[in-house]
Amino acid sequence: MSPASESTIDARIDALARKLSNWERWGLEDELGTLNLITPEKRVGAAACVRSGTTISLALELRSDLPQPPGSGRLNPQHVMTETGSDAAAGDSPGAFSDDVLAMSIHAATHWDALSHVFHRGFMYNGRPCTEVTSGGARANDIARVADRVVTRGVLVDIARHHGAEALAPGQEVTVADLESALAAQRVELVSGDILLVRTGHLGRISASADWASFTEVNGSLPLEPGIGADCLPWLHELGLAGVACDNWAVEHLDASSGGRLPVHEVGIVHMGLLLGEIFQLDALAAACAADGHYDFLLAAGPLPVRGGVGGPVNPLAIR
Amino acid sequence: MSPASESTIDARIDALARKLSNWERWGLEDELGTLNLITPEKRVGAAACVRSGTTISLALELRSDLPQPPGSGRLNPQHVMTETGSDAAAGDSPGAFSDDVLAMSIHAATHWDALSHVFHRGFMYNGRPCTEVTSGGARANDIARVADRVVTRGVLVDIARHHGAEALAPGQEVTVADLESALAAQRVELVSGDILLVRTGHLGRISASADWASFTEVNGSLPLEPGIGADCLPWLHELGLAGVACDNWAVEHLDASSGGRLPVHEVGIVHMGLLLGEIFQLDALAAACAADGHYDFLLAAGPLPVRGGVGGPVNPLAIR
Amino acid sequence: MSPASESTIDARIDALARKLSNWERWGLEDELGTLNLITPEKRVGAAACVRSGTTISLALELRSDLPQPPGSGRLNPQHVMTETGSDAAAGDSPGAFSDDVLAMSIHAATHWDALSHVFHRGFMYNGRPCTEVTSGGARANDIARVADRVVTRGVLVDIARHHGAEALAPGQEVTVADLESALAAQRVELVSGDILLVRTGHLGRISASADWASFTEVNGSLPLEPGIGADCLPWLHELGLAGVACDNWAVEHLDASSGGRLPVHEVGIVHMGLLLGEIFQLDALAAACAADGHYDFLLAAGPLPVRGGVGGPVNPLAIR
Amino acid sequence: MSPASESTIDARIDALARKLSNWERWGLEDELGTLNLITPEKRVGAAACVRSGTTISLALELRSDLPQPPGSGRLNPQHVMTETGSDAAAGDSPGAFSDDVLAMSIHAATHWDALSHVFHRGFMYNGRPCTEVTSGGARANDIARVADRVVTRGVLVDIARHHGAEALAPGQEVTVADLESALAAQRVELVSGDILLVRTGHLGRISASADWASFTEVNGSLPLEPGIGADCLPWLHELGLAGVACDNWAVEHLDASSGGRLPVHEVGIVHMGLLLGEIFQLDALAAACAADGHYDFLLAAGPLPVRGGVGGPVNPLAIR
Repeated sequence: MSPASESTIDARIDALARKLSNWERWGLEDELGTLNLITPEKRVGAAACVRSGTTISLALELRSDLPQPPGSGRLNPQHVMTETGSDAAAGDSPGAFSDDVLAMSIHAATHWDALSHVFHRGFMYNGRPCTEVTSGGARANDIARVADRVVTRGVLVDIARHHGAEALAPGQEVTVADLESALAAQRVELVSGDILLVRTGHLGRISASADWASFTEVNGSLPLEPGIGADCLPWLHELGLAGVACDNWAVEHLDASSGGRLPVHEVGIVHMGLLLGEIFQLDALAAACAADGHYDFLLAAGPLPVRGGVGGPVNPLAIR
Repeated sequence: MSPASESTIDARIDALARKLSNWERWGLEDELGTLNLITPEKRVGAAACVRSGTTISLALELRSDLPQPPGSGRLNPQHVMTETGSDAAAGDSPGAFSDDVLAMSIHAATHWDALSHVFHRGFMYNGRPCTEVTSGGARANDIARVADRVVTRGVLVDIARHHGAEALAPGQEVTVADLESALAAQRVELVSGDILLVRTGHLGRISASADWASFTEVNGSLPLEPGIGADCLPWLHELGLAGVACDNWAVEHLDASSGGRLPVHEVGIVHMGLLLGEIFQLDALAAACAADGHYDFLLAAGPLPVRGGVGGPVNPLAIR
Repeated sequence: MSPASESTIDARIDALARKLSNWERWGLEDELGTLNLITPEKRVGAAACVRSGTTISLALELRSDLPQPPGSGRLNPQHVMTETGSDAAAGDSPGAFSDDVLAMSIHAATHWDALSHVFHRGFMYNGRPCTEVTSGGARANDIARVADRVVTRGVLVDIARHHGAEALAPGQEVTVADLESALAAQRVELVSGDILLVRTGHLGRISASADWASFTEVNGSLPLEPGIGADCLPWLHELGLAGVACDNWAVEHLDASSGGRLPVHEVGIVHMGLLLGEIFQLDALAAACAADGHYDFLLAAGPLPVRGGVGGPVNPLAIR
Repeated sequence: MSPASESTIDARIDALARKLSNWERWGLEDELGTLNLITPEKRVGAAACVRSGTTISLALELRSDLPQPPGSGRLNPQHVMTETGSDAAAGDSPGAFSDDVLAMSIHAATHWDALSHVFHRGFMYNGRPCTEVTSGGARANDIARVADRVVTRGVLVDIARHHGAEALAPGQEVTVADLESALAAQRVELVSGDILLVRTGHLGRISASADWASFTEVNGSLPLEPGIGADCLPWLHELGLAGVACDNWAVEHLDASSGGRLPVHEVGIVHMGLLLGEIFQLDALAAACAADGHYDFLLAAGPLPVRGGVGGPVNPLAIR
């Protein structure tokens, strides 16, 4: 990156931030951001999308060998047993128990970003200073604040399938035109309060190969990632979407031109208060949608209410 | 306990186990247990319980100061930051991020027990030997197997309110008669595939006082706990319930007569394959149900899919 | 505390800081502080203190039930097994292994404070800004820098015994007069490069009762602690001691007059670069010294070299 | 491996076990094993090896990116900050602190194996059943038992240098002849109670390349490792050594002929009660020994006293 292009990226992010800001839109104290767009009526309508009664989990299994390769700085989910059946077999009690411990980087699994996860020019969502996120956790905009909110109509847009590809190429950008033409082909419309799930096929391809070396950030180097471009933000804003999740590491398109910046995070999370979901498994859902032609469903995806958490692990369920 | 009463408890557990066994009912390889009773049609019906579009989380906030007092052997949820806004403030990048790690005993928060959590006479659900649960985790009956299943009609039965009490007394048993009269008063009926949420008021009372010393096991001593008695198991079996959750530590009634045994666990989990949910916050849900008279709702409560996990943290959502 | 006394404490700390500063004494890049006072000749002399060939560990056993009571914000040492003999018994291999994991707050066990553990007016030892200690760890003055240095002559001064007490009272201050009269009675002299171990009896008394509620900080409240007063700092400076360790939580005297400040830390660590050791078990050593009249010994006490660590767990060995 | 060779290895291990057993040698209750060979007189003599007063740490720095590659099942040392200088900078207190947490597989750093780390035919050292090592930790032979013992004369034998190599080849066996000729060339003799440090150069070579992929077990596959062969065990036994440590992962020679077995562990730890030290950094020590011709020194290497631990992290100090 030349200094010139750095300032270009900066200027572009600043312009988007000004244009799309939701600060104070829902009050000076608001910590929900675009989740405010999910109304009770919205949820009643979403429940009507339950047609066949099947459920699909969009969570990656929690395992120690993924999704981070070594050196990334994040801890893959570690599961250790504190009591076992082996112990029970060696004992003489008729009734016995097993027990376990889980330790993980919250962002090293299927999760929602909290609105305290990202800062732009020293601030997080709704104009709060970044210094409200200390080693003690986030004093505002933490994930616990939204734990009961994430139930709405979900809509899958299958960009990989629309392009006739198993998966988009690493670094391929998903544009507004891609989204609109795929949605049109799927005969489904987005409305305010929806959560959009964007399928690139990226996570499925990497899962199949078990080669996680290029899926996440490693040692400060961002991966080449197919995902939505920053140009999608005004479109998401206009539609009034409550959130966006994707089958990749960071939702957004990343390549050499990104210059190490994440505009969808910096503008979307910080200025729009947009809920972003990462490392969502969308392949099984996509197959089901393709089979019956219904791309909308009830999405129930409340994160664990971690006090002070800047993200929340979640098992998102598509109920169709 | 005299040896006589130990053998009495043993005999009672053995008799219930024989009578209520679901081993092989859904095949030799089954790992779902009573979750088999949730059919797709069941879920379509459950979605029709969404009337007002409100959602209530039944999860306790994840914090380091609860629910275990010191010495219990379990680790309360620990949240540590690996990147902060303070760091960002000290840096000079316009875009910045925070990050965090969560470590916890899985059973030290709102959770579902996996069918690998309990052993009786050396076996777990469906006749698998307890030695399939080693330090490497559960090779069968782990929580990841059921992560996409736990969506059905939920029914709250508010025993505390029915008794006109803020909370049941520690050690008070919930009987079949209690359940039936409370359900009748609430004008709601249980049917096959439902998950029953039993409110004792116990968790709410302890949360209010912030005195957790008597909520969980400590140093091998079981707490005095209001909960369902083992006599409820045949009734649950007959009704075909898919699961039971409670606002206490272990679902079941515990007092001096328990002799250190947990028959609802030993028979329910091991022999019936019954899904048990613990440390569910039911007070806000109870208030909402009392306000509009509807005690059934869509329950979306998929646990985190921890590979090998003998339990799963969950943010259960009641969608009404 | 009234504002007046706050400013009095501030003024006293500032005055001591100016008077005792070792910043730049050993160069602009120095990260060793008073450990520079341990010369090779010093260690040769220290080895001559090995008279009987006995060794005494000054470390508290690492256990999950101490030294922190609940709510302190630090994590007691947690030990979990990842492979067990029970598993081996259930297997069929002639050779088998066990394995384990340790997780702990570094300062929740016998440890040395790193020179990056404390800040005064925004700076740590040798004038480095506190912002060099981020969520990524300490970029300077970390414990790994001194891991090979802490071998010298150790001298025990048994203040409790000198006062004819099992232990000093909580909040009792150890003065220069106490130190000098006890050393004189013990017929031992301090010289440059020594590490002084100050026995108050406090840890032993609390260990015996297993009541840890008043040993450490809890929820931001400092304990009443017997320990050295800030007036000892000039005396330590004059003598040229390489470090001080104590059988308490924070080395220094803490009571209501402390106003929540820790002058021995703020002046000693930040301005003098003084190595402080905490939660050292000194009772067995004291008994041995009293028995044969030798209060000096070879102290080998290298902390674990945790990269970026602001403290280091240690098993200090007195070799007599 | 053919079944024939498996039974050959079994027979060889059994024969060595019978021949070299120290069970009951130091009493039925002994948990120290060969550390019994370190007498007080031995330590007085060891102190006389302190000639120049220099100290060298033999510990690998604790870092998250080594020594395990991904998939090994062990957790590299993880260091997380719970309070930082960045937080302090954002606050307004004149005095402030940083704090941190360490989490690690005990065997994923420089450590001593406890005598509860290995089982042979269902038993550990001194005939105790392996079932005494449960998920609760080792009830006998834990590392805390030996925490104050590991101070004695250390002797370095530099096999790599003796062979004129930077490092031995992966899978190269160190024989008794190698040891004897190297010691003779170094003009140093081993006597009872010594701890022998065997330098292969392996750890140094891998550290230099930062390629840890082949240093440890990965997914159940043992590495090719230069180290001592099982034939050295009778020689160690005859000499009365108190322990052996090496600059590799498992002390012992591992190659395709090992058949997945570790005879030095199975015989040495289980039957001899021999203290084994792994992942010791010996290059700096070797350089110092070569420079002045002294290959013996005082070794102070007490592990952290982890209650129930089957290993203990250590910062071994060679004091010369």
